[in-house]
Amino acid sequence: MREYFPQIKQPVKFEGPETKNPLAFRHYDAAALVGGKSMAGHLRFAVAWWHSFVGEGRDPFGAPTMVHSWDTAGSEMERAENRVDAAFEFFTKLGVGFYCFHDADVAPAGADFSEYRTNLHRIVKLLKQRQADTGVKLLWGTANLFSHPRYAHGAATNPDPAVFAWAAAQVKNCLEATLELGGENYVFWGGREGYETLLNTDMKREQEQFARFLHLAVDYAKEIGFCGQFLIEPKPKEPTKHQYDFDAATVLGFLEHHGLSDHFKLNIEANHATLAGHTFEHELATASIHGKLGSIDANVGDPLLGWDTDQFATSAMLATRCMLVVLRQGGIAPGGLNFDAKLRRGSIDAADLFHAHIGSMDAFARGLKAAQRIIDDGVLDGFIRERYQDWSCGLGREIVEGKQDSASLEQWVVTHGEPVPRSGRQEMLENLIASYL
Amino acid sequence: MREYFPQIKQPVKFEGPETKNPLAFRHYDAAALVGGKSMAGHLRFAVAWWHSFVGEGRDPFGAPTMVHSWDTAGSEMERAENRVDAAFEFFTKLGVGFYCFHDADVAPAGADFSEYRTNLHRIVKLLKQRQADTGVKLLWGTANLFSHPRYAHGAATNPDPAVFAWAAAQVKNCLEATLELGGENYVFWGGREGYETLLNTDMKREQEQFARFLHLAVDYAKEIGFCGQFLIEPKPKEPTKHQYDFDAATVLGFLEHHGLSDHFKLNIEANHATLAGHTFEHELATASIHGKLGSIDANVGDPLLGWDTDQFATSAMLATRCMLVVLRQGGIAPGGLNFDAKLRRGSIDAADLFHAHIGSMDAFARGLKAAQRIIDDGVLDGFIRERYQDWSCGLGREIVEGKQDSASLEQWVVTHGEPVPRSGRQEMLENLIASYL
Amino acid sequence: MREYFPQIKQPVKFEGPETKNPLAFRHYDAAALVGGKSMAGHLRFAVAWWHSFVGEGRDPFGAPTMVHSWDTAGSEMERAENRVDAAFEFFTKLGVGFYCFHDADVAPAGADFSEYRTNLHRIVKLLKQRQADTGVKLLWGTANLFSHPRYAHGAATNPDPAVFAWAAAQVKNCLEATLELGGENYVFWGGREGYETLLNTDMKREQEQFARFLHLAVDYAKEIGFCGQFLIEPKPKEPTKHQYDFDAATVLGFLEHHGLSDHFKLNIEANHATLAGHTFEHELATASIHGKLGSIDANVGDPLLGWDTDQFATSAMLATRCMLVVLRQGGIAPGGLNFDAKLRRGSIDAADLFHAHIGSMDAFARGLKAAQRIIDDGVLDGFIRERYQDWSCGLGREIVEGKQDSASLEQWVVTHGEPVPRSGRQEMLENLIASYL
Amino acid sequence: MREYFPQIKQPVKFEGPETKNPLAFRHYDAAALVGGKSMAGHLRFAVAWWHSFVGEGRDPFGAPTMVHSWDTAGSEMERAENRVDAAFEFFTKLGVGFYCFHDADVAPAGADFSEYRTNLHRIVKLLKQRQADTGVKLLWGTANLFSHPRYAHGAATNPDPAVFAWAAAQVKNCLEATLELGGENYVFWGGREGYETLLNTDMKREQEQFARFLHLAVDYAKEIGFCGQFLIEPKPKEPTKHQYDFDAATVLGFLEHHGLSDHFKLNIEANHATLAGHTFEHELATASIHGKLGSIDANVGDPLLGWDTDQFATSAMLATRCMLVVLRQGGIAPGGLNFDAKLRRGSIDAADLFHAHIGSMDAFARGLKAAQRIIDDGVLDGFIRERYQDWSCGLGREIVEGKQDSASLEQWVVTHGEPVPRSGRQEMLENLIASYL
Repeated sequence: MREYFPQIKQPVKFEGPETKNPLAFRHYDAAALVGGKSMAGHLRFAVAWWHSFVGEGRDPFGAPTMVHSWDTAGSEMERAENRVDAAFEFFTKLGVGFYCFHDADVAPAGADFSEYRTNLHRIVKLLKQRQADTGVKLLWGTANLFSHPRYAHGAATNPDPAVFAWAAAQVKNCLEATLELGGENYVFWGGREGYETLLNTDMKREQEQFARFLHLAVDYAKEIGFCGQFLIEPKPKEPTKHQYDFDAATVLGFLEHHGLSDHFKLNIEANHATLAGHTFEHELATASIHGKLGSIDANVGDPLLGWDTDQFATSAMLATRCMLVVLRQGGIAPGGLNFDAKLRRGSIDAADLFHAHIGSMDAFARGLKAAQRIIDDGVLDGFIRERYQDWSCGLGREIVEGKQDSASLEQWVVTHGEPVPRSGRQEMLENLIASYL
Repeated sequence: MREYFPQIKQPVKFEGPETKNPLAFRHYDAAALVGGKSMAGHLRFAVAWWHSFVGEGRDPFGAPTMVHSWDTAGSEMERAENRVDAAFEFFTKLGVGFYCFHDADVAPAGADFSEYRTNLHRIVKLLKQRQADTGVKLLWGTANLFSHPRYAHGAATNPDPAVFAWAAAQVKNCLEATLELGGENYVFWGGREGYETLLNTDMKREQEQFARFLHLAVDYAKEIGFCGQFLIEPKPKEPTKHQYDFDAATVLGFLEHHGLSDHFKLNIEANHATLAGHTFEHELATASIHGKLGSIDANVGDPLLGWDTDQFATSAMLATRCMLVVLRQGGIAPGGLNFDAKLRRGSIDAADLFHAHIGSMDAFARGLKAAQRIIDDGVLDGFIRERYQDWSCGLGREIVEGKQDSASLEQWVVTHGEPVPRSGRQEMLENLIASYL
Repeated sequence: MREYFPQIKQPVKFEGPETKNPLAFRHYDAAALVGGKSMAGHLRFAVAWWHSFVGEGRDPFGAPTMVHSWDTAGSEMERAENRVDAAFEFFTKLGVGFYCFHDADVAPAGADFSEYRTNLHRIVKLLKQRQADTGVKLLWGTANLFSHPRYAHGAATNPDPAVFAWAAAQVKNCLEATLELGGENYVFWGGREGYETLLNTDMKREQEQFARFLHLAVDYAKEIGFCGQFLIEPKPKEPTKHQYDFDAATVLGFLEHHGLSDHFKLNIEANHATLAGHTFEHELATASIHGKLGSIDANVGDPLLGWDTDQFATSAMLATRCMLVVLRQGGIAPGGLNFDAKLRRGSIDAADLFHAHIGSMDAFARGLKAAQRIIDDGVLDGFIRERYQDWSCGLGREIVEGKQDSASLEQWVVTHGEPVPRSGRQEMLENLIASYL
Repeated sequence: MREYFPQIKQPVKFEGPETKNPLAFRHYDAAALVGGKSMAGHLRFAVAWWHSFVGEGRDPFGAPTMVHSWDTAGSEMERAENRVDAAFEFFTKLGVGFYCFHDADVAPAGADFSEYRTNLHRIVKLLKQRQADTGVKLLWGTANLFSHPRYAHGAATNPDPAVFAWAAAQVKNCLEATLELGGENYVFWGGREGYETLLNTDMKREQEQFARFLHLAVDYAKEIGFCGQFLIEPKPKEPTKHQYDFDAATVLGFLEHHGLSDHFKLNIEANHATLAGHTFEHELATASIHGKLGSIDANVGDPLLGWDTDQFATSAMLATRCMLVVLRQGGIAPGGLNFDAKLRRGSIDAADLFHAHIGSMDAFARGLKAAQRIIDDGVLDGFIRERYQDWSCGLGREIVEGKQDSASLEQWVVTHGEPVPRSGRQEMLENLIASYL
């Protein structure tokens, strides 16, 4: 088989924090145990097919800068097959256990729906073979319902039912593909489910269409025996002016309102969190406290730029705060950490793709280790427990249990007077968490 | 009675668009009919007690700039009483039908809870008298659960149940006051219900406390026979780093999750909408399509500043888009348009308060007239109706009615091929709406 | 000649504010006099070649949605020629007097520099012919130094001098083309002149390269006798993380520091202003008070989206504030108002391009008329004059003239005591300006 | 002398990274050498008087939460004197070498200017004594020209020359005080030098007033023999809608335009940088490459909040990037790192002030050590040097030296063809810098 990353002669290895080798792991040691579980088992890293093997360095003001060795010759289908080989070579050399894809990333769209289906089937067969060859698994599959011009005004939320039909047909095929490949999750990202202007939009109707659409997918999964986890990935805007799946809280409300809560969890992305005005940690925690943190798109945005920069995260602090939420809920499986991140446009060498993933895997490995130590030490959790302890007894408990009403509380206030102020100790806690890194 | 606005010799009058008198209305003509209802009946303008009679031009870097004639001498209670007189003089001279207040705006906090209660009762009595004298009504009352240091870490969501008790006791008294004054609504704005850092916060527990708190208020309202509408006012941040009532969708989800939907509607503020990354119109529409648009805080923010500037809105376009939502849902009553807006810090004269309200009342009057004409003409609504018409028949209707599943839709796609793209006509519609102004 | 906009049978006409014809002007009446000069003479509208005839509705998440009739068949060069015909048909039917272009918009890049040059010369010849045929003129030309992959790390500011050479060679040819076509200005927009990360950047050196580059252009213009105005167009970011021409003040400082002030003015774009955290009006005024407002990219951004949305402006208020700056400085010529705006991605019909331009031309026509009336009435300018009048006499004048020093001012303060506070009357002035619309 | 921080029994000590003592330094070891200079000598930490000893936890929606032991009894002047004692106790226990103040922080305003002057003189005498007692020095002094209502419409840029006079008189006295106390710098932060609305503003005139004002200060410094460094601190907005000293580039341009460049450097604040849309590192580097980085306000903002949160920085990465700029320019003296940061409103205990400073001092100590190692290793600087090496020979050198013109460059391009693209290696460099922490 042709080699696509000949620069990287052997799999990336763990060499420890002191190594000067930029193509080695400093912190990520797949088999090393953290809290009794391997790092690989905790982190379940996945490579994003679109950014890593399809993206070519285009931006709104510039043409592609990257020339991929798997993309230089042959028919569209041959190039797609070469891309599969390149991808699995990359997964293997990097030492990552999962990948994620959209239908449009792996298989050519073809001239019509039948050809799309044929192409997808053929590629799925090849992917299955490569999975068997390498042991790399599919974290999640999804349908690209945003790039094709037919989706300009929405997929499920399009004013034209014919477009809804196309979207549903794509999802059907992607569900089948995900099932066939043993994918553990299936993701919906509604990049066009929203509006450009309310002047031409019936928002109520569109949201109902969207709910109907998700119910169809749930029904079809049941029909074919797909038992993976359904996930929705919130994002507030871009490409749409306003996207209905704005953030975690909005999606949770939508799911509950439309009777979909039992079937969906959330796939939280760092860059989408900040675009919505939240920290990554906030979105993770919001999903988690509702039992709905299903998977993570591990990347980072530029806080000074107003679009989805999808950068590789290298902040150990960000990763620590992320892994704290994950560890507290008992892990992320069957979800994982998908690198929904792309090389900067000027990083045009194949080696850059390795650098990028290595740096981010190391960051999350550091975060995992720090989070486990923080939890083991118990200082942070102990602080919170103590801070709210008055809710577990006396007045607090009576309020929680519904044994106090407005009048009795007023009476309590008259009797007890002003509460004693207590410091929230934010600075001390910030120092504390910094001390683990 | 002492006169507090002697500069304004008589009530502000409607003089028509051509007037050069800056202290006259150009568009707001209270009794004039629009769509068969008076402007006053449509708009239900309310003056915000806090900004207009308490605010004194302080900002985070500067001391007060405004010296109010009602605030220069006497005991705290006497000044509070003078303020009532000044307020009703202002309402009357401006020709506005409603006002809104927090307990802390109208009555001194006193040395303890009992004194607070006594002060509030005394002022309520005076307010009731002035209402009777003038015909001005209370649009809504509310409790200030954010200014006092005891609320630094939250009111209902405080780690200390004693603070919860204080907040509940305040709400109890404010509900009684609102009932006594015939207030048509009661508002919750949770300025401190959120967190500064997740490092010291149990978000799940705090949100449950908050739900409990709202249930207590609902129960007490029932007990005392308060039948006004409960409202929650979303805001994403400021003063808190993250506020739980982030935006309309978040609050709607929270209410539904905690069994509170039947008891609450939303009070949407323009400046809070934009701080949350939404247009004012989006938040209005989100509330409205759920049947939950209860009232409006009519102001505007500065899109380039990241805090709540609470400015008086003078944009007729903003007002038109607002009134379109209001007219389409059949009006805003029992809610209204409360001017939650303050003078700029350098606008230190009593006349400025008149200029500010006049300008904003005129803007919404223009918006009302334009919105009514847009609806009467039917062009905009007709465009939307036609755009989605395929959902009312054939394939669209079958999807909506659950008569299509994934497999049948795929078959439809194979048979029918690519949909015909249609323009969304955004630019034409933007021109259209601009042509009404 | 083939007709590319057959839907539009005749030139767009002025029909007055009451017309219901969406393809007529309501306010823009080219020959009508405002302040003694025709509207066309004031506004000098230009169509942007790139958005209008090259853009096809691509966005970062979606493929092109627009199929242009001039772009469907023939060699690359034939399509470029058809595009010229389509463009001049559009200019003529719309009734606009100017256009603007980048080399890359009008002529194919070719296989190498020689071919690029040949293509450009051929198209320039055709453009010149069409200008003569129609009377439409070139407002400004420019070189596209950002789309080609060679410019990924900068054009003039590239770490590779060979890229600098390419950029200089392109500018040379574009200057020649602009001269040949009688272009009245020449624009530099440094979309790649900046950095993605300081980790790999020598900012000092890059800025010196940039200054050198501009000097070369100035020298060459002199050499060939190009007497048009050089313009720099500030933008803070996008596509680059940080762009050196951040905003008007930054560029003015750069020009002065590098001895370029005499040769350059600024081309201010509304959307770039807001991306930099400024109002459009601020950037216009900053340029204007330095005598450096040369031309305008008339568009608008979405204040809630963090990228360059390049929308057609329909706000008469925005236009009024813009035209106030223009009128106060005695006009914008030899610059003009270039519509650097594009159709929304879902606006896919040829008619949409007319709607968009008509709406924006009407907005600026309204703004022009309002601004002229505001100036004629003198109320606004009078307010400002009076506000600062104390600087023209007494203490103020002595300070300005250097007749006061720190010690004498301290003495003055001791003698005179606290100044009398005066209202800034912001709300009254906002009402005033709104009353003209 | 009364003890104000009895909780802290002894000076904070360095105990190394493994300590569990939250009131010890983990990284800051004042006398330890880094690159041959002590940490204290590199970092020159200063405590900000206003936040630490005057601020009381007020925010725009809330009353003070903090009760300072030095502020509970006595006349205004006595409290000011107690505050001095508390401050020097804090400096000594914390082990910090410098402090900074505004006149208004240390001395009561008094009833008129004479009283202000008297108060200031008295406090300066006491400060001088305490400096002598403890060895703590004044990093910089400044005048508060923004809090008093008289400055609502600007200090130097006020429409009223009488306000200009007040501001100049205050600066005169603050210069004298700074001289008397051996202050090494004098800072101008123009919090009110800008506008709320252009509708009432003559921007050109105001900027000229501002330049005049700075010249007066320069003249007076010369007169009294103050040889410290003048600094301007850029900030884009807040409290003003638009502040003239928007960012580093704007201020550098302003200084050059008004002949002030020789007399001023910049005081760069992290939180102001991000409010202006820049990274902290960008603003530092912009100042530094112009030889104008004079001092640093070491804090951090919340990237999701749109106001000046002035938080204590705990990010070692931020500190590393800061110290890289500082070390590369050969140090920050006579400037320093002033903690322009405040406790969160809920951090109400005296111990919190220690936690906050300790955490931030540790962060900058880590940053200093990492930056020194990065420079010593030479990998990062070597990468940049190599990246631009073609500018030091051949074509690059000829361009720089003015030996190439447009025509010769075009000829070069025709001869040499397309440049070879090179990766910018951003991800590798990000990994590299992360590996030092």
